Amino acid sequence: MINSFYKEMTGKESVIRQFFDYSRKRAAEMGPDSVYNFSIGNPSVPAPDSVTRAMQELIANEDPVTLHGYSPTLGLPSTKKAIADSLNRRFGMQYTPGHIFPTSGAAGALAHALRAVTKPGDTVITFAPYFPEYIPYVTGTGAELKVVPADPTSFQINFEKLEEYLTPDVAAVLINSPNNPSGIVYTTETIKRLAALLEDRQKEYGHEIFLITDEPYREIIFEGTDSPFISKLYDNSICCYSFSKSLSLPGERIGYLAVNPAAKDAELIVPMCGQISRFTGHNCPSSLMQRAIEGELDNTSDLSIYEKNAVILYDALTEIGYSIVRPGGTFYMFPRSPIADANEFCWTGAKELGLIIVPGDSFECPGHFRISYCVPTEQIEKSIPLFRKLYERFV
Amino acid sequence: MINSFYKEMTGKESVIRQFFDYSRKRAAEMGPDSVYNFSIGNPSVPAPDSVTRAMQELIANEDPVTLHGYSPTLGLPSTKKAIADSLNRRFGMQYTPGHIFPTSGAAGALAHALRAVTKPGDTVITFAPYFPEYIPYVTGTGAELKVVPADPTSFQINFEKLEEYLTPDVAAVLINSPNNPSGIVYTTETIKRLAALLEDRQKEYGHEIFLITDEPYREIIFEGTDSPFISKLYDNSICCYSFSKSLSLPGERIGYLAVNPAAKDAELIVPMCGQISRFTGHNCPSSLMQRAIEGELDNTSDLSIYEKNAVILYDALTEIGYSIVRPGGTFYMFPRSPIADANEFCWTGAKELGLIIVPGDSFECPGHFRISYCVPTEQIEKSIPLFRKLYERFV
Repeated sequence: MINSFYKEMTGKESVIRQFFDYSRKRAAEMGPDSVYNFSIGNPSVPAPDSVTRAMQELIANEDPVTLHGYSPTLGLPSTKKAIADSLNRRFGMQYTPGHIFPTSGAAGALAHALRAVTKPGDTVITFAPYFPEYIPYVTGTGAELKVVPADPTSFQINFEKLEEYLTPDVAAVLINSPNNPSGIVYTTETIKRLAALLEDRQKEYGHEIFLITDEPYREIIFEGTDSPFISKLYDNSICCYSFSKSLSLPGERIGYLAVNPAAKDAELIVPMCGQISRFTGHNCPSSLMQRAIEGELDNTSDLSIYEKNAVILYDALTEIGYSIVRPGGTFYMFPRSPIADANEFCWTGAKELGLIIVPGDSFECPGHFRISYCVPTEQIEKSIPLFRKLYERFV
Repeated sequence: MINSFYKEMTGKESVIRQFFDYSRKRAAEMGPDSVYNFSIGNPSVPAPDSVTRAMQELIANEDPVTLHGYSPTLGLPSTKKAIADSLNRRFGMQYTPGHIFPTSGAAGALAHALRAVTKPGDTVITFAPYFPEYIPYVTGTGAELKVVPADPTSFQINFEKLEEYLTPDVAAVLINSPNNPSGIVYTTETIKRLAALLEDRQKEYGHEIFLITDEPYREIIFEGTDSPFISKLYDNSICCYSFSKSLSLPGERIGYLAVNPAAKDAELIVPMCGQISRFTGHNCPSSLMQRAIEGELDNTSDLSIYEKNAVILYDALTEIGYSIVRPGGTFYMFPRSPIADANEFCWTGAKELGLIIVPGDSFECPGHFRISYCVPTEQIEKSIPLFRKLYERFV
C-alpha cells in the first residue's frame, strides 16, 4: 500500500505555491501587466558568462567518459580543493578538501548536516521567521524542530526566548543569514552572543551543540551591512551553501557543506555524509557542474539589481507608511502588515490589485508579508502606486 | 554530538572499494599493465555525440535564466512528456507525464519508490545475488530487506524459496534485471510467474505488493536474450531507471521513476515523490541534463563493446573450465569460484596476478565472483592467460 504519511501531504499545497499559481492564472487571463509576482525567490539575473564558457570548454575539450563519469562518493577532489581554497582565501579559514562535501544545493547540504549531528528524538532549534522547508528537512532526520519566536523590531535573534528554548536535548541550532524572508543579516555582535551562549550550554550539558548555517544568500549583501563569516566565530559549525543565487544556477542543484576544521570530529563528518547519501539516495551533484564552478568560486552573477530594487522599494514603502526592518541582503524584505491579519491583507487586498506577496504566517511570523524583489526594476517602480493604494485601503 | 550510526559506518569500507583501491595502488607501483581492474561498473564508452551536441546547443542558445532555473518539484514537463512518449512508443505502455518523476539516477529513483510504497516496519524482498546498496536504500525508509537465496543454476528467481519469504508484511519486491552482478535477464516466463504469484498473494493478504524494478542496464541486452518490459506484465509496478549506462552519463545523476498507469493510486505516487524529496533533501536532477536527454531517449552510446567482451570472456573462461551462467546483458558476469571460498580465490589468488575481481559474498552469493568487463577489449584478451593460470593454481 502507498505510504499514508506522504499521501496525505500531497493534498496540501504550499501557500507560496498557491500565490504563484494565482499569479500565472491572472497573467494569462488579464495580461502580464496585470500582475506583479513578488512570491518566488528565483534569481532574475543570468549566470556569469564565465560560467557558461567554463561549461562549454569542458564539454568541448574534456574526454566525455571522464567528464561525465562517476564522482567519488565524497565529491571530486579538484572541486573540494577549489572550494576550500576559496573559503580560506576569502574568510581566513583553514578548510582542507576533507572538510568539503559537494551537494545538490543547500537542501542536500542541510539534509546531510542535520543527519550527521542529530539522532532521532533530538531537538533542533531555529528562529522565526524561517524558510518553511526546514520542517521536512529536520523531521526527515527523526529530530524535532522548535522555533524561537521572532524579534520583529530587528529580526536579529530573540535571545531572551532562545535561553528558554535551549534544553539538554538540543543537538543543533539552524540559522539562515542572510535571511529568507526578512532580508536581515545577523551582525557580528549577534553571532558572538549566540556563540558564547552555545559554548556555555555545551559545557553545561556535556555535549556539542552544532550550529548549522544555511547561507545561500551569503554573496547578496548590501552596502554597509556587517556580515561576518559565521563559522569563524563558532567552532562546532557546518556551513551549508548553494550556488543557486550567487551564480544563478538553481536548477543545476549544486552546493556544498563545509565542516569547520575546529569542530569536534571535524574529520569524520564528510565521510559520514558519504554514508548518509546511501540511505537517502542522494549522490554527488552533476560532475559537469562540479567542474564548471571550480574556477568561479570568487565570482558571482551581477547581483547589483537586488540592492537597487531593495533601495527603491524600501524608500518608497516606508515613505508611504509601511513599517519595515531595512534588509541587509538577499532579495527579500518583510514589512509589517498594516492590519493584524496579514492573510487578509495579502489574499483580499493585495491580490485584487495584482500584487502577489506572501503572508508571514508561512514563515511562522504572522502580521508581516514577504516581498521577493528578484524582478526587473521596472516592475518594482510600477508596483509602488499599487502598494500605496493598498496601504490607503487599510489604514 | 555526531550521529553514532553513521559514524560507525565510516570505518567499514566496501569490499569493491578495497579492490578498486588496491588496483590503483598496484598500477602506481608496478605500472598500468600489471593490473586488470574488473572491479568497477563504470561505463567505458563515451556519451553519444548527439548528447554532447544537445548540451552545447542548449548552453549556446537558451536563455540561461530559464535553462539553469528551478525545475518544478515534479520535474520539467517537457522532460516528463518525452520520457513517457518514448516508453509508450518502445514498450506499448500508456504513461502520461504525471507518471514520470525525474531523479538523480537510479539511486534517487529507488529511494523515492521505496518510501512511496512502504512504511516503517514493512518488509521488502529482493533476490541474491543483488547490488549491496539495496541494504541502505531499503533500511533508510525504515523497512527491512529480506533476501531470497539465489538459484545458482540459472540466476532466475528461486520460486520455491520466494514462496516461503512472501508473508503479509511484504510491501514490495525489488528486482534488478538485467542483473548486477550476474548479467542475467529475467525471462518473460520468470516475470509472468512472479506476477502471478504476487497477484495471488495480494488477494490473499488484502493489500498491494509493489514490484520495484531497478533497470539501469535495460539497454544493454545481448543478441537472442528474452528481455520483457517488466511493467507490462504486472500492474502494481514502478520502474526505476538511470541514463548512467545507456548514455554513459553516470556522473550527471540523471534517471527517473515511471509509475505503471495501471497501478493502484498511480496518479498519487509522483506527487508523493515530490513530498518525499523534501524530507531527504533531494531535488530534481540538473535542469540542463533533463533538457539534454529529451531528444536522446531512443538513443544509446555504442554499447556493442560490452557484448563483444562478454562473448570473448565467456568463451575463453568456459573453455578453461570455469562454470558460468551465460550473461544476457549488462557488463558483468558471475562465474562460480573453482574453490568454495571465493574470498580466498579473489584476495589471494587473483589479486596476486593483478586480476581485480570481486567475491560474490558482497552480493550475498558466496562461491562466485563478479567480473566487470566494461574495459577495452584488449584488456579482456590480455587477461585470459591470467585467468587460466589462476584456474590451474586452484584446480
